[in-house]
Amino acid sequence: MCPYWLSLCSGAHVLLSQCPRRLIFIQGTFSPFLAEVLLRMHSVGICGSDVHYWQHGRIGDFVVKDPMVLGHEASGTVVKVGSGVTHLKPGDRVAIEPGVPREMDEFCKSGRYNLSPTIFFCATPPDDGNLCRYYKHSASYCYKLPDNVTFEEGALIEPLSVGIHACKRAGVTLGSKVFVSGSGPIGLVNVIIAKMMGAAAVVVTDLSASRLQKAKEVGADFTIQVKNETPQEVASKVESVLGCMPEITVECTGVQACIQAGIYATRSGGTLVLVGLGPEMVTVPIVNAAVREVDIRGIFRYCNTWPVAIALLASKRINVKPLVTHRFPLEKALEAFETTKRGEGVKVMLKCDPTDQNP
Amino acid sequence: MCPYWLSLCSGAHVLLSQCPRRLIFIQGTFSPFLAEVLLRMHSVGICGSDVHYWQHGRIGDFVVKDPMVLGHEASGTVVKVGSGVTHLKPGDRVAIEPGVPREMDEFCKSGRYNLSPTIFFCATPPDDGNLCRYYKHSASYCYKLPDNVTFEEGALIEPLSVGIHACKRAGVTLGSKVFVSGSGPIGLVNVIIAKMMGAAAVVVTDLSASRLQKAKEVGADFTIQVKNETPQEVASKVESVLGCMPEITVECTGVQACIQAGIYATRSGGTLVLVGLGPEMVTVPIVNAAVREVDIRGIFRYCNTWPVAIALLASKRINVKPLVTHRFPLEKALEAFETTKRGEGVKVMLKCDPTDQNP
Amino acid sequence: MCPYWLSLCSGAHVLLSQCPRRLIFIQGTFSPFLAEVLLRMHSVGICGSDVHYWQHGRIGDFVVKDPMVLGHEASGTVVKVGSGVTHLKPGDRVAIEPGVPREMDEFCKSGRYNLSPTIFFCATPPDDGNLCRYYKHSASYCYKLPDNVTFEEGALIEPLSVGIHACKRAGVTLGSKVFVSGSGPIGLVNVIIAKMMGAAAVVVTDLSASRLQKAKEVGADFTIQVKNETPQEVASKVESVLGCMPEITVECTGVQACIQAGIYATRSGGTLVLVGLGPEMVTVPIVNAAVREVDIRGIFRYCNTWPVAIALLASKRINVKPLVTHRFPLEKALEAFETTKRGEGVKVMLKCDPTDQNP
Amino acid sequence: MCPYWLSLCSGAHVLLSQCPRRLIFIQGTFSPFLAEVLLRMHSVGICGSDVHYWQHGRIGDFVVKDPMVLGHEASGTVVKVGSGVTHLKPGDRVAIEPGVPREMDEFCKSGRYNLSPTIFFCATPPDDGNLCRYYKHSASYCYKLPDNVTFEEGALIEPLSVGIHACKRAGVTLGSKVFVSGSGPIGLVNVIIAKMMGAAAVVVTDLSASRLQKAKEVGADFTIQVKNETPQEVASKVESVLGCMPEITVECTGVQACIQAGIYATRSGGTLVLVGLGPEMVTVPIVNAAVREVDIRGIFRYCNTWPVAIALLASKRINVKPLVTHRFPLEKALEAFETTKRGEGVKVMLKCDPTDQNP
Repeated sequence: MCPYWLSLCSGAHVLLSQCPRRLIFIQGTFSPFLAEVLLRMHSVGICGSDVHYWQHGRIGDFVVKDPMVLGHEASGTVVKVGSGVTHLKPGDRVAIEPGVPREMDEFCKSGRYNLSPTIFFCATPPDDGNLCRYYKHSASYCYKLPDNVTFEEGALIEPLSVGIHACKRAGVTLGSKVFVSGSGPIGLVNVIIAKMMGAAAVVVTDLSASRLQKAKEVGADFTIQVKNETPQEVASKVESVLGCMPEITVECTGVQACIQAGIYATRSGGTLVLVGLGPEMVTVPIVNAAVREVDIRGIFRYCNTWPVAIALLASKRINVKPLVTHRFPLEKALEAFETTKRGEGVKVMLKCDPTDQNP
Repeated sequence: MCPYWLSLCSGAHVLLSQCPRRLIFIQGTFSPFLAEVLLRMHSVGICGSDVHYWQHGRIGDFVVKDPMVLGHEASGTVVKVGSGVTHLKPGDRVAIEPGVPREMDEFCKSGRYNLSPTIFFCATPPDDGNLCRYYKHSASYCYKLPDNVTFEEGALIEPLSVGIHACKRAGVTLGSKVFVSGSGPIGLVNVIIAKMMGAAAVVVTDLSASRLQKAKEVGADFTIQVKNETPQEVASKVESVLGCMPEITVECTGVQACIQAGIYATRSGGTLVLVGLGPEMVTVPIVNAAVREVDIRGIFRYCNTWPVAIALLASKRINVKPLVTHRFPLEKALEAFETTKRGEGVKVMLKCDPTDQNP
Repeated sequence: MCPYWLSLCSGAHVLLSQCPRRLIFIQGTFSPFLAEVLLRMHSVGICGSDVHYWQHGRIGDFVVKDPMVLGHEASGTVVKVGSGVTHLKPGDRVAIEPGVPREMDEFCKSGRYNLSPTIFFCATPPDDGNLCRYYKHSASYCYKLPDNVTFEEGALIEPLSVGIHACKRAGVTLGSKVFVSGSGPIGLVNVIIAKMMGAAAVVVTDLSASRLQKAKEVGADFTIQVKNETPQEVASKVESVLGCMPEITVECTGVQACIQAGIYATRSGGTLVLVGLGPEMVTVPIVNAAVREVDIRGIFRYCNTWPVAIALLASKRINVKPLVTHRFPLEKALEAFETTKRGEGVKVMLKCDPTDQNP
Repeated sequence: MCPYWLSLCSGAHVLLSQCPRRLIFIQGTFSPFLAEVLLRMHSVGICGSDVHYWQHGRIGDFVVKDPMVLGHEASGTVVKVGSGVTHLKPGDRVAIEPGVPREMDEFCKSGRYNLSPTIFFCATPPDDGNLCRYYKHSASYCYKLPDNVTFEEGALIEPLSVGIHACKRAGVTLGSKVFVSGSGPIGLVNVIIAKMMGAAAVVVTDLSASRLQKAKEVGADFTIQVKNETPQEVASKVESVLGCMPEITVECTGVQACIQAGIYATRSGGTLVLVGLGPEMVTVPIVNAAVREVDIRGIFRYCNTWPVAIALLASKRINVKPLVTHRFPLEKALEAFETTKRGEGVKVMLKCDPTDQNP
């Protein structure tokens, strides 16, 4: 098995220490559908879900049963193209959207392909991810990077997309007051995107002062370090620093008390977007939300975000480079995963191309 | 006080039996703002909230502290008009929208005046309702009835409006599959309105077979009598009878298990509208809703519905007359309230004009 | 060529009379992509565009250069399925959506696949249509018909879709007042669909009293026979019969004066949808539209309409059967086209299955 | 008597030189409705429409029949408040929204009060503007300025609002590519607002190199100096510099050829917003727009923009100060108008408070 592919799989922390080669993926033969491309991978970010699969072997109903390649925040270079590919050619640098619908069902047809139940998605079992040397993907979901956008920026489009999809579903627009609950990587991208969309003021809450410091750096107007306040008290503080209740709350923790605070905090007629996921069953003040017409909307990954993100990165209006705090060559993937697991830094990037370890 | 107005107030069932005159409202003098009209009331429906205030003296934070006139499902005839009124004249028959914003705040300006926190609303304490002989109201919120629309149809616009607002917030459109949870008066109007908006199939659930029969009569395509199924089982039955999951669920009971069923039942990308209100805190499968992008939206009363309802009633495309199952003259208001309290029939109508007790 | 396929092509009326076999399509071999199905065609309606290609060989930039099979309003029975087809099996009766995107471009991904510039579309050159015995199509764009929906109803989904797409783009909703300009087949389907979506009143204009009679039959509330009124006069008459200006105008003629009337007639804040297409350059009162925020929106075919239409047809809420006024066996295709060309009846249906000529 | 207000009236350029007193208005007594405030005016910008009324005495159907105070881009300080005013007090610095609906009609109720046909609007005949010393206005349409927002920024909210309303109607969002046709003051605010809403790239066209230079300064990514290109050629250049067709075009000239270019330039499925107004009848390639589903939407002034603009100005995310190129004390109003008429600079500001001529 080893020569063909090796993965970070469930229980893989044992295997990894025994056999680092298991981190190396080599595609034996290339026989793509006419609409696929073969990529030489360059940069792949590690996501919390990658660590979760590695450590726990499952997320909700998605269970790792067979060895699975991790990685879904990625960019690389086109090496070969299928016969039906017209918009890419060998040598093109691309960002990879990890979700590729397998059938043209009602969700795809109506522009919400992320909800297609049969979608292929990198590193969601049983689908392999792209943390490897070479990788084959649907050409339609590979987006050419302009010269002034780096591979790492390309890989960061995936986490950015979560923010774009969340802020779009939230309806962030010019002049919005936004409350972002949680200052981890996803909270940060929501701060960045909300500001980009014209939000007039963004306030971020978190338990950690250092995380809040990061929020300030990426553009948060206000931060609130929470401790053991009640949800109502948090809501009250949010209103106090903004000078009004926010029309929009983006909840990135999944914690029950934070979801409750999100409802209390949001202005009548506004929207609470649930990005962070916690326990399946949550107790919420549903009447409070209902009679004030505060909509509660979740997000599942994203759709139609890559072109948007590339346009923004190309315009130099958005700076995500500071998000990358660590880099490791692919051979040191285990070390990279351990670093992420310890919660160090913001984004750890794996460099898959031995000949080019640049950003 | 007695000669001027008498109300059904908290604890009023005692007073009522002692002094029927207390049900009679006579406005002493008429000095309206320039934009008000004086109305001779004709028909006023009794709503569950009227009964609730009568029996319990409060709904949530709204507490009856002083005697309060009940009634907010009403129609009548213009008797006098203020100097600034241009679109109405004495003799005009009108339906009355009970909510009148008191200030042009951000909610009013943006078309969601129902959310204005200072809104006047008939029979929500401390604002008096219109279950009386004569009543003064903002002319802008009195809508002229065409000749072919009866006073009772005019009064029924209020409950219809709940359905209109709910179905609009739900996004019911051509071809929608809709699940209405609960077959009380509000469930029924949602069935009627959803069908009017082009829903292809509506399924209704309830504990009571007789209520479900009523749902059939107003247009439900399918009914399911529930007993002690789990929420997941209810969802499964709904999918089974529709042949697919509904894009839209309109929850009209407020019961926790029903809200849960509403989430499980709704198709990915769809909407659950909360119309029924139960306990403040409810435990819901929030992750299930979030990752399938099932939006959860409440409604607070309604806005911009009267012109829509009048146009429909005038077009004879909608038949709400069967909803009125009981009629009482105003003098027998107590009896009418007792009837409503016992849950008999669908809608009890009080006739306020001694000279015209017709529909 | 003859054994494989023969078509109604530009100038084909000569060929047709010489060689009726040229109307017979036999697919030589069946080697579909995994996601295609082979269909035995049953009913195919003749559209004005079919006649136009037959007579003129072009519509705008679309020029018939090679023989082309006509027909795109169609239904049939699945005969074979490709290996990747899961939702259909031989024997299934299906309606055929004629437009199939060839690539997953930005338009497809965002739910507007009808705008995809490389889309395959039946009987738009150079793509063949399905007026033939056997026909191969993408399985994802074949929709299973319930038992209670006939093949002809299935074929009529195509013209219905134009109405669905137009009325959706127009924002027809509960209580809408709608002005439909033109009472040809497309005007009629817009009347039907607008009423289904809850329009309170629909007024139709046309030059022909007999066409207006048909509008009445399918549900129009009012009709106005126009002669040589100015656009402003037409607008005035529309307002007069409706009792107010319509929020929505659906223009189905493409005539300059009618487009002008549509602008003048539409209420401030409303929408004019352009369905009929006439000369490329048209002079319009653009300032009148702009300062009253009357949106002008065109439509290009349709998207996401087949499931909606099937749900409606299955619910028996919509009756399109009266639209079929003529039927011909496929062998008499020339006669059928001549009938359509003469403007007789509403919809002419060709019956492609010699063993089943039922509706 | 001079101390209270001064107006430019119809035909005033003659009268002004002959009789300065005709410029003087004295407000006799202050008896506001309970919901009005008296303001001491501070800064009032001159708009093209002010100059047009001054020079031509009419714009379209709006004809100056009696002397009329000009001015509608204004800010001032509250001096007195009516008894019903709760959110303002003497001393508050406010920006003035010039349009105040006179009745709660269907447009007001649905959040589009700018379309209310009976709306009061400063300096649209016969309603007086606020280019004066003291001025009375509806309190609900006076918005308190934070300490860090200057009076002139407050006055500039009016032109900004045109951009906000246009870009909102256009649907500018994250990553949009936008084509702004015309680089006058309104073109410039659209550039500013589009960028604020997350547009990835904005291209501006104009005849004048110096105006285009200004566009660059306020944030345009690209400029194109047009000369005598055909509309198709302009569209082609726009696509060329953006690297793709823009989803959105904001047309600010009203010139027929520019509207045509706007249609040709806009991507399928996109939106052309008409802001500039020219001749009533315009010839446009309507089929091109229709079959590519390019929506054509006008704007009439604006609604719900002041709170948005104030939030942005307070956040310091937007810098409009460079737009003010000239300042004159109210006494030199004639000179200010002459300057504006000559087309010098961008925005000319009149300073109405003799005791405070600061920005």
